[in-house]
Amino acid sequence: MKVMRAVNTKQCVPIIYALLQLIIFYGGRNVVTGVWPLPHALTVFPERYPLNPRTFYFDYGRHSATQQGCSVLDAAFRRYLWIIFPDYTAENGQFAANNSFNLHISTDHNDCENYPNEDSSERYNLSVSAGQASLNAATVWGILRGLETFSQLVYQDEHGSYFVNKTYIEDFPRFQFRGVLLDTSRHYLPVYAILKTLDAMSYSKFNVLHWHIVDDPSFPYQSRSFPNLSNKGAFHPETHIYTQSDARRVISYARMRGIRVLPEFDSPGHTRSWGKGQSDLLTPCYKGGAPSGAFGPVNPALQSTYRFMTALFKEVSSVFPDSYIHLGGDEVDFSCWRSNPHVRVFMQKMGFGGDFPKLEAFYVENLVNITSALNKTSIVWQDVFDYHERRSALSVVEVWKHGCYLCKVRQVTKAGLRVILASPWYLDLPGPTHNWARYYTVWPLAFPGSEKQKKLVIGGEVCMWGEYVDATNLFPKLWPRASAAAERLWSDEKQTSSVERASPRLEDFRCKLLRRGIQAGPLYVGHCKHEYQGV
Amino acid sequence: MKVMRAVNTKQCVPIIYALLQLIIFYGGRNVVTGVWPLPHALTVFPERYPLNPRTFYFDYGRHSATQQGCSVLDAAFRRYLWIIFPDYTAENGQFAANNSFNLHISTDHNDCENYPNEDSSERYNLSVSAGQASLNAATVWGILRGLETFSQLVYQDEHGSYFVNKTYIEDFPRFQFRGVLLDTSRHYLPVYAILKTLDAMSYSKFNVLHWHIVDDPSFPYQSRSFPNLSNKGAFHPETHIYTQSDARRVISYARMRGIRVLPEFDSPGHTRSWGKGQSDLLTPCYKGGAPSGAFGPVNPALQSTYRFMTALFKEVSSVFPDSYIHLGGDEVDFSCWRSNPHVRVFMQKMGFGGDFPKLEAFYVENLVNITSALNKTSIVWQDVFDYHERRSALSVVEVWKHGCYLCKVRQVTKAGLRVILASPWYLDLPGPTHNWARYYTVWPLAFPGSEKQKKLVIGGEVCMWGEYVDATNLFPKLWPRASAAAERLWSDEKQTSSVERASPRLEDFRCKLLRRGIQAGPLYVGHCKHEYQGV
Repeated sequence: MKVMRAVNTKQCVPIIYALLQLIIFYGGRNVVTGVWPLPHALTVFPERYPLNPRTFYFDYGRHSATQQGCSVLDAAFRRYLWIIFPDYTAENGQFAANNSFNLHISTDHNDCENYPNEDSSERYNLSVSAGQASLNAATVWGILRGLETFSQLVYQDEHGSYFVNKTYIEDFPRFQFRGVLLDTSRHYLPVYAILKTLDAMSYSKFNVLHWHIVDDPSFPYQSRSFPNLSNKGAFHPETHIYTQSDARRVISYARMRGIRVLPEFDSPGHTRSWGKGQSDLLTPCYKGGAPSGAFGPVNPALQSTYRFMTALFKEVSSVFPDSYIHLGGDEVDFSCWRSNPHVRVFMQKMGFGGDFPKLEAFYVENLVNITSALNKTSIVWQDVFDYHERRSALSVVEVWKHGCYLCKVRQVTKAGLRVILASPWYLDLPGPTHNWARYYTVWPLAFPGSEKQKKLVIGGEVCMWGEYVDATNLFPKLWPRASAAAERLWSDEKQTSSVERASPRLEDFRCKLLRRGIQAGPLYVGHCKHEYQGV
Repeated sequence: MKVMRAVNTKQCVPIIYALLQLIIFYGGRNVVTGVWPLPHALTVFPERYPLNPRTFYFDYGRHSATQQGCSVLDAAFRRYLWIIFPDYTAENGQFAANNSFNLHISTDHNDCENYPNEDSSERYNLSVSAGQASLNAATVWGILRGLETFSQLVYQDEHGSYFVNKTYIEDFPRFQFRGVLLDTSRHYLPVYAILKTLDAMSYSKFNVLHWHIVDDPSFPYQSRSFPNLSNKGAFHPETHIYTQSDARRVISYARMRGIRVLPEFDSPGHTRSWGKGQSDLLTPCYKGGAPSGAFGPVNPALQSTYRFMTALFKEVSSVFPDSYIHLGGDEVDFSCWRSNPHVRVFMQKMGFGGDFPKLEAFYVENLVNITSALNKTSIVWQDVFDYHERRSALSVVEVWKHGCYLCKVRQVTKAGLRVILASPWYLDLPGPTHNWARYYTVWPLAFPGSEKQKKLVIGGEVCMWGEYVDATNLFPKLWPRASAAAERLWSDEKQTSSVERASPRLEDFRCKLLRRGIQAGPLYVGHCKHEYQGV
């Protein structure tokens, strides 16, 4: 057995690099294992301890603020027992009856019934020694992250026996906001596909599901207040919708995994499907002095628009508990507004002249005020920042355009606004997308700016737009490529700057995803011990 | 009801164009249906007949050469009953008990126990009228194609009732060879994934599975004569192999669907995995006058090489009944041969001087002779044609390189050799692969040449190389994009030259694939009535 030296990341970065791949030699056989995304401080010792699924126990420490009955953790223990011991069934008895192992959990706070939010700590410490491990965190969300890490430390030898090595870990996320965007308008995604995405997200420590729920092609959200929006705007009013109960199920499933659900109701553009079930909402376009029959963006000139939006966002705010809401605001085409004489009269009245960006800024600011009154922090796409003069009215800007996206990050943070970075992580885009490394070699803070500016970059997001994506190809397109971004958003940048060193760990992690039933695509030529069995 | 005119393709091409999308209006509701790939002559009348799964019967015509007990057709009837009536279970009784419908089958030959081959006729005539349909063909393979067509003519109204319209069809393939290449060396594909691919192939009327079974990364074929090839060359000697029984199962499953299985044992390059289980087969590379420890292509200078290949191909020929065999011959790197003093001595002895293409030609010609003696027609990749001086020794050349591939097709046919075209159908390649139209707008005969030359283009092939493909993403990558190529290879080119007209039919066909359990990816924004439920 090759002895591995105990190291501490801060003291001994080069040795940690050698350990990143955690190539552990047992009797001449290599067991490649690792943790993805990489913890900030990780020390693995050569001592290994056998684990027996029949005598493996989770328990709450005596001084823990959470105790049995904590919904989030009790459910996580059940889930992770199956994840840690994938071969385990009550019948198979190949495991020695001794070797009991206790994983002691302890939290500072009892937030078992809360939702995770933008201030939730996800920090945890994990210490594995003979017969036991201690997992400590301020919150249940930190415990969830630590359980995921622990599950990735366990491995099987060639006989199927389970082991974990003596290990110390101190870990915390680099960025607070680590999102995955799903688009359920261009193609409808069945609820089970969203739930399975939440499972996979938790394995990569993502913590925000950005649900781009409606858009031009369809309006699958079934509104209590405005049922016609989905009755007429969904692809099908019964089979291709999300009921209130579906939304609650997604939110609850996400909460159990420490994931926030951020709904986006994008306007004033991208709203064609809204118009089918809500008359007088979209702007009638004119041609030759008369309505052409076509409709453009939401009509910003009507009082009824703001009454409708107030009622809709009131409902949405009650369904989605997260304190953030995404208002969209991207890609507004002004030609229809320009064609409409009533809109032009309104602009004169408001003193906007012919300045359509002013009109859009007026519209978005109204929506920001509506959602502020509902105690929501609004996120907008960068377009809104670009045309807005009174930028102080904004809070969080999502940078999505290509080109020099860090220039935009710099500009937005200079204006004192928070940034979510999406530009480098459009995973749906065609092109040489085989190469996961392009999502890995992204440096979100590599722009000239003050420490204060850097702190305003609250995170990033993987976007899976739906033009060419539905339940048939979502998983192999998203995983494990999204996991590359996940490590960038969670781990220390210096420790994870090498694609070469990350590669075998990501290969290994992809095999873990397959083992857990996630249809994660291949990275390159090779194989997993347990191939995907789901066709 | 909008009356559709009866037409005949030859007389009335413009009207056929209008019918291609088969938009049939019933009580104001559009039922878009169609057949993919498009039959050569198709006439659909407005009269529709209800079908009842309980009283729908296949039967053999009195004068048919095939009768009950015909393995291929009896199995096809069982299969297509479920495909035609996807909602049907013995319990549900929403269908009226009357309306019996008989599909009469008649063949000229009894080839029920044969394998399809390069001369098999797939021509069929189908005539649907009140209460019955007649499906006539020379062979059972033609009947299989006609059953597929019939299954695509049946549709459901909004209440779930089944209908078929009065229809006349005369149909036959444009090209005799319509293949799909699967690569099971770069990633192992479980047998069920291959079988499911055969199902999907039959829906698009593909008739050749080109099984690129071994290559550099792994040797999953379990040889009776040389068990060490897979014991040492497979990714795993037990879980990542194809046993003789697996191969037989694939061949039998393919036969039942009128599909030939064309095995490829690519050499002398692409053989790294062979060397693990067969010593003295690969060329030892030299560095500084001594063997470097690395190995290159198969060693063409040793008698033992040809003894081994004779024994291997004898076995392979007995396992794979098809009269074609693919010998590969692509991408041979000469540097290792050049480095080896024994190879150089051999070349002097043979009078090749320093001409390595001559050496490769010598090697391939030996293999062609070995397989000819086994009554096999050999296919080689275009590289072999390019360096071969005595081209008359060759039979079928597969054109795969990019650039002006039609120039190569012209050149090969001018030399009197048969061509299989693969270049435009590398579906695994990254790039703007979203667009199925690039696989549709391929004109295999658009090169200057004689009629005789055009006839030498025996078909084409969709290639799904395995670098980035395994069972997790094979299906949404292959389907329905391969179907675009399938229509090019089956249908009349003039009738299928428009992407715009093909688009709604392909959308509809893709939904049919989903309904049949094939994880076919989306073409663009939209939905199917029955979305994929397999996650």
